[in-house]
Amino acid sequence: MKINNVEIDDTFAEIWDLKIARILVTAYSESWALSASQMMAGYGSSVIMCASQAGIEGPVSPIETPDGRPGVLVQVSLPPDPPYNGGKLKKEIVTRTLTLIQPPTCAAFNAMPKELIRETVDVGSQISRFGDGFESEDVISDREVYRIPVTSGDFIVEKKFGITVGCDGHFIVMAENVVAGLAGVNAAFSAIRTVGGVAPLGLGPSNSAKRGGINYKERATTSHAYVPSLRNKVKDTNVPEGVEAVMEVAFFGLTMDAVKKALKVGIEATTTVPGVKKISALDLGGTFGGHQIYFRDLF
Amino acid sequence: MKINNVEIDDTFAEIWDLKIARILVTAYSESWALSASQMMAGYGSSVIMCASQAGIEGPVSPIETPDGRPGVLVQVSLPPDPPYNGGKLKKEIVTRTLTLIQPPTCAAFNAMPKELIRETVDVGSQISRFGDGFESEDVISDREVYRIPVTSGDFIVEKKFGITVGCDGHFIVMAENVVAGLAGVNAAFSAIRTVGGVAPLGLGPSNSAKRGGINYKERATTSHAYVPSLRNKVKDTNVPEGVEAVMEVAFFGLTMDAVKKALKVGIEATTTVPGVKKISALDLGGTFGGHQIYFRDLF
Amino acid sequence: MKINNVEIDDTFAEIWDLKIARILVTAYSESWALSASQMMAGYGSSVIMCASQAGIEGPVSPIETPDGRPGVLVQVSLPPDPPYNGGKLKKEIVTRTLTLIQPPTCAAFNAMPKELIRETVDVGSQISRFGDGFESEDVISDREVYRIPVTSGDFIVEKKFGITVGCDGHFIVMAENVVAGLAGVNAAFSAIRTVGGVAPLGLGPSNSAKRGGINYKERATTSHAYVPSLRNKVKDTNVPEGVEAVMEVAFFGLTMDAVKKALKVGIEATTTVPGVKKISALDLGGTFGGHQIYFRDLF
Amino acid sequence: MKINNVEIDDTFAEIWDLKIARILVTAYSESWALSASQMMAGYGSSVIMCASQAGIEGPVSPIETPDGRPGVLVQVSLPPDPPYNGGKLKKEIVTRTLTLIQPPTCAAFNAMPKELIRETVDVGSQISRFGDGFESEDVISDREVYRIPVTSGDFIVEKKFGITVGCDGHFIVMAENVVAGLAGVNAAFSAIRTVGGVAPLGLGPSNSAKRGGINYKERATTSHAYVPSLRNKVKDTNVPEGVEAVMEVAFFGLTMDAVKKALKVGIEATTTVPGVKKISALDLGGTFGGHQIYFRDLF
Repeated sequence: MKINNVEIDDTFAEIWDLKIARILVTAYSESWALSASQMMAGYGSSVIMCASQAGIEGPVSPIETPDGRPGVLVQVSLPPDPPYNGGKLKKEIVTRTLTLIQPPTCAAFNAMPKELIRETVDVGSQISRFGDGFESEDVISDREVYRIPVTSGDFIVEKKFGITVGCDGHFIVMAENVVAGLAGVNAAFSAIRTVGGVAPLGLGPSNSAKRGGINYKERATTSHAYVPSLRNKVKDTNVPEGVEAVMEVAFFGLTMDAVKKALKVGIEATTTVPGVKKISALDLGGTFGGHQIYFRDLF
Repeated sequence: MKINNVEIDDTFAEIWDLKIARILVTAYSESWALSASQMMAGYGSSVIMCASQAGIEGPVSPIETPDGRPGVLVQVSLPPDPPYNGGKLKKEIVTRTLTLIQPPTCAAFNAMPKELIRETVDVGSQISRFGDGFESEDVISDREVYRIPVTSGDFIVEKKFGITVGCDGHFIVMAENVVAGLAGVNAAFSAIRTVGGVAPLGLGPSNSAKRGGINYKERATTSHAYVPSLRNKVKDTNVPEGVEAVMEVAFFGLTMDAVKKALKVGIEATTTVPGVKKISALDLGGTFGGHQIYFRDLF
Repeated sequence: MKINNVEIDDTFAEIWDLKIARILVTAYSESWALSASQMMAGYGSSVIMCASQAGIEGPVSPIETPDGRPGVLVQVSLPPDPPYNGGKLKKEIVTRTLTLIQPPTCAAFNAMPKELIRETVDVGSQISRFGDGFESEDVISDREVYRIPVTSGDFIVEKKFGITVGCDGHFIVMAENVVAGLAGVNAAFSAIRTVGGVAPLGLGPSNSAKRGGINYKERATTSHAYVPSLRNKVKDTNVPEGVEAVMEVAFFGLTMDAVKKALKVGIEATTTVPGVKKISALDLGGTFGGHQIYFRDLF
Repeated sequence: MKINNVEIDDTFAEIWDLKIARILVTAYSESWALSASQMMAGYGSSVIMCASQAGIEGPVSPIETPDGRPGVLVQVSLPPDPPYNGGKLKKEIVTRTLTLIQPPTCAAFNAMPKELIRETVDVGSQISRFGDGFESEDVISDREVYRIPVTSGDFIVEKKFGITVGCDGHFIVMAENVVAGLAGVNAAFSAIRTVGGVAPLGLGPSNSAKRGGINYKERATTSHAYVPSLRNKVKDTNVPEGVEAVMEVAFFGLTMDAVKKALKVGIEATTTVPGVKKISALDLGGTFGGHQIYFRDLF
């Protein structure tokens, strides 16, 4: 199949389940809400290197937030199964939310839709301890919150945050150079932001890693089959001629349906960028994640 | 003393020592180098909540970087003494640098001046294991690096990174509202970026915390003496009438001299912003950090 | 009336008619579409100083544009009556659109809804002359366009652009300092962007001018009745005690209904910002524009 | 000659003289100074389409500005000879500076070094008329200014602005796709900003135009010899195989020496970007501008 003259591989993305929280950060201005969210979601691009995965879903206009101020949606996630399961995500949600108590004017609300909530975390009561007895309870737009007096005003945090079981998603972009590939990924996320409920992993575009190594014993190493400069040096290359850069468009979403929509609009947008040659998915053997989404079913 | 009609308290900033690494991140464009640096330095605004402190010093032009591409300076730091000492900072330097292997086109170089280096970390050799045997050694502008083939090109990382013993610094801004206070802090960092070697802690402006609590037993709680809304509710308030927001300008620097210069130009720039009423420093009892910088000596 | 403890004056905004064009600028990336739009809409903040008024309505996602790429909406306007009427706006639409032929990858489409079009301009055929005979006609998503080969690809421009008769709108923000006032205006435009069809005049926040002068014979001079520093020097001041900065939130919209909605959500958002004291409207005598919108009717 | 494996054509850039003014815009914050400068310098990308050429040189730190606030340097220029000569540039300097009276907190200072000034414009006295008799004279850091009370504070404008006779400069980037070419131009301007005194024309990267037309009688048409899609359709093509996008890096500078340095560091930085294939200059016949800079003399 071709879209805008770019070949779409007849393959599938392997999908695995993820526990996800979704936090609405508001502040006095759009740009400050974004800065605080980037700090909160930083150092969160990898389940192996970082304490949790995090990504920024996108902005929320002030007419849609509980406090009438501009907001940004942040997602924090970890795989549900060992070695990542249980209380670890809850602790990460509390700690990342707690970092918002520093940048002036921030507030944090639960943004997980009620119907998707599988578990809740008592974020507010834990963070309220920072108030040292001066905190109080309040209700803002029907949400139960703590109001914690800090030196620049009050920090507002909702009492309970929801966790759902969503999933990850990805496709890979093969381009004639890395700059075109990056532009393709950016175009993808411009489109994906319209879906709702989907956030890039870290910055979005990512080099690929494989589990383990063929020469070294490591948890993760470079995905040599997708490295253009190794095309003629390894036997199992997946890089066609004319492709000089390969990268993942990596994200996670609250539902499988949202991830499917993200794959569709993301792939379409990527194909509008000159220099993008082919769209594919990582070959993980077909048994890595618990689910598969075939690209041919998206269009 | 008054500058631009803003009162500068006759007090001092308590300064404590910090172990610091300084990493130059380069990429194909200024904005992408900044995005990758923000991700790398994220979740690093507090020694209590985060695995390490991190901040972005500022941009470096392509004519000054080893690979001729635009760059951004990132600092990572931890206090030298228990419970933070030793290998923990080294591990954090490696892990935060390793996150740069994901966003396409990044490279990481040591940016600690030779004369300040007290210890070194073998960042390159640890990260090179990601290459799974396909990595190679190279020299770029007299720097020994590893060249690791990743799916979008080569990831370049210098072999050794230096650690110095620098220090933190801060002053506090008292303003008639939080927006003016934030603008004051932004002006401060516009000036501080010219000093060289100084990076904001996290996002720069920060609400203040105190050690422990008066009502709760916690490691840190709201600095109630600096909370304007508690001015008439606590006996030990430090908030003058007319001040409705207080925040810290928190940073760290490679040398005491750089921190002094940062305090000077930062305070001066802050006073240009309408609505800023007073500059002071946190009263920590005078024995908290090992050093003191008196504001009166700066001007 | 008070909203979020900010006083809303019981007054009205005078509204006058404007001829408006609405142009969708697309490009290979969101940020490049925005840069090109800022250049195209620049030097357009005043009908007196500039050849036309212009403003940026906001971004359009790639799934909503004719060419599947990210876009930005730009509005260009002039008053319908002498000395501004007639062909002058048409010329400005052509020339400002023509500037898009320089920055690589841009395209320009009509974004005026069919039902609002009162006149059309043959933008495409005029700009197509740049093609020097190498241009061709094409259809993209049911839109008739010219395809002009330029050195970085093809410049796409729709044949006909619509002009409507919309109107301007404004309210004024009184704040305890200028920084808080600016933050109030920014919050307003974060909310106003959700309305659709409304664009800020120039950068949005604006000092006020009055027609003519009381001491000098000029077309426009400082609106002395709203200058806080002249509060005690002029007899006709409109500045209350405690207000140290006054500024306009100035915009224009395709319909009166859109302008009303913008006033409502803009005022509400402004009141969330600390330091904003009062919302009002310029007193122009009640006969300046042809229409009046009473604030009390909005809430 | 090759740099970073990119071919540098053995050719020269034709240079013509330009009258240039250089204006320092300061504001309460870096980002607001930049926004105001973009508005002021907008609609200024072409001497044919726009009333004057304008470009943004770059930021100035608060420790280097007369009022201790962050600043941005803007250049405004026109060719010295008919039909562009004389008072037209002076009028444009006044009018573009006057637009700064709208966005709150801006100030405008002359930034032309004394030794380069050939003519001066009385900007301050003309703009001071906006003060309607409430304006006053003042001195800020040895500069004579007018202080004009506006509704958000005082607008400060220096009395006299200098004009020099500088020149333009350009090179062209040939790339395997437009995205790589744009990244090349961005890298160039990251380097060029370090030179001082050099500003991009409009947004910097630009499609090329030729004077007149071969099929149409127009002042300027597409530079068909540099259009990749016409490579096989015109006889006089300058586009090599493998190049799918060509664009100009267009700028102007206060001195020939600054333009030479900009060419050097700009070309070098461009060659670091993957997908850039060749650097050249527009073939204008060798007699178009009054000067020539040979690339071979730069390195």
